[in-house]
Amino acid sequence: MSKEIDFIKKRRSVRKFRKLPVTDEQVTRLLEAAMAAPSAVAKDPWRFIVVRRPEHLRTIAGFLPNGGFLPDADVGIIVCGDLDAAHSNSLSYLLQDCSAAIENLLLAASALDLGACWLGVHPREDRIENISKFCKLPENIIPVAVIAIGVPAIAPDPRTRYNPAYVRSEKWQ
Amino acid sequence: MSKEIDFIKKRRSVRKFRKLPVTDEQVTRLLEAAMAAPSAVAKDPWRFIVVRRPEHLRTIAGFLPNGGFLPDADVGIIVCGDLDAAHSNSLSYLLQDCSAAIENLLLAASALDLGACWLGVHPREDRIENISKFCKLPENIIPVAVIAIGVPAIAPDPRTRYNPAYVRSEKWQ
Repeated sequence: MSKEIDFIKKRRSVRKFRKLPVTDEQVTRLLEAAMAAPSAVAKDPWRFIVVRRPEHLRTIAGFLPNGGFLPDADVGIIVCGDLDAAHSNSLSYLLQDCSAAIENLLLAASALDLGACWLGVHPREDRIENISKFCKLPENIIPVAVIAIGVPAIAPDPRTRYNPAYVRSEKWQ
Repeated sequence: MSKEIDFIKKRRSVRKFRKLPVTDEQVTRLLEAAMAAPSAVAKDPWRFIVVRRPEHLRTIAGFLPNGGFLPDADVGIIVCGDLDAAHSNSLSYLLQDCSAAIENLLLAASALDLGACWLGVHPREDRIENISKFCKLPENIIPVAVIAIGVPAIAPDPRTRYNPAYVRSEKWQ
C-alpha cells in the first residue's frame, strides 16, 4: 500500500480539540489545498470565510444541530459557492466543486496533524438562512458547509468503509 | 511544505493515456480511497460501476461532450449516488458525498502514478438519461460523474489555483 493512500485513510472526523492555536500559515496551506481541487470548467466557484473570533464561532455553532463543539475549534472555515461563478450557474456543479475542495482541505488538515470536521449546512434551509444573515452573504453566495479545525485531542485509527457491495462491473444489472 | 500537501497539488486532470493496463488491484485501491471519504451521517450513498470493455467505454464517451478521450483510458468508473440511501434522501447530500469520494479517488490515482479525469454527468439531463438507460440504472440511482483512469502519457506540473480574493475574514462584509 502506498504511503499516500494510507494518508487518505488517516483522515478521520475530529470533534475534540486541544486549546492550542492553528496558525495563519496553516490556514493558508489548507486553503491552497482546497483550491487545488478540480472544478467544472475550472470555474472555481468556491469562496471561504475564515472565522476565528470565539463569539462568532459560538453564534455559528448555535445554527448547527451537530456543531456544539465548534467553539472548541480554533478556526471555523465557512465554505460557500458563488452561484454566479459556477459553471452554467448550476447549483449541482457548485456543490460538487465545493465538496471536492472541502475534501482536499480535510486531507490537508490531517497532513498537517490538525483535526477537522465537516459540518453540513446545505440543503438545510434554516442553516442556510441563519448563516447567510449572520455573515451578510449576498444572494448569489450559497453556504455549503462549516469546517471546524483545531489541534486534535484524539487520534482515531485510519480506516476505509470500503464495501464491495457498492461496486458493480460494466453495468448496474 | 509537507509532502502530503504537495501530493494534493500533484493531482492534475489527465486526458492522455499510454496503452498500458490499470490492474484490478489498483482499481480496488482507488475504491478503498473513495470510500474513505466522509459522508453525511455516514450514509455512504456512493455506488461505483467499473467499466473496462472498450465498446462500453466508446458508447459512454458518446454521451459526454468532453469525453472523447475516454476510450483511451483503460478503465472508466461511473460514480453514482443512491437517493434512497442518501441522508434525508437529499440530492444535495448525495452530490456532496459522491464528490468527496471522487476527489479521494482522483488523489489516490495520482498517488499510484495513474492519470485520471473527472467527466461531469449531473446535472445534464441528456447525459443522466443516456447513462441511466445504457447502464440500466434503477430510478433511485443518480449518475454523478465518469472518471477516466489510465497510465498517464503526460505529467503536468503540480499546482494550486489559490486565489486570496476568494478568502474573507469573519464575515462576508
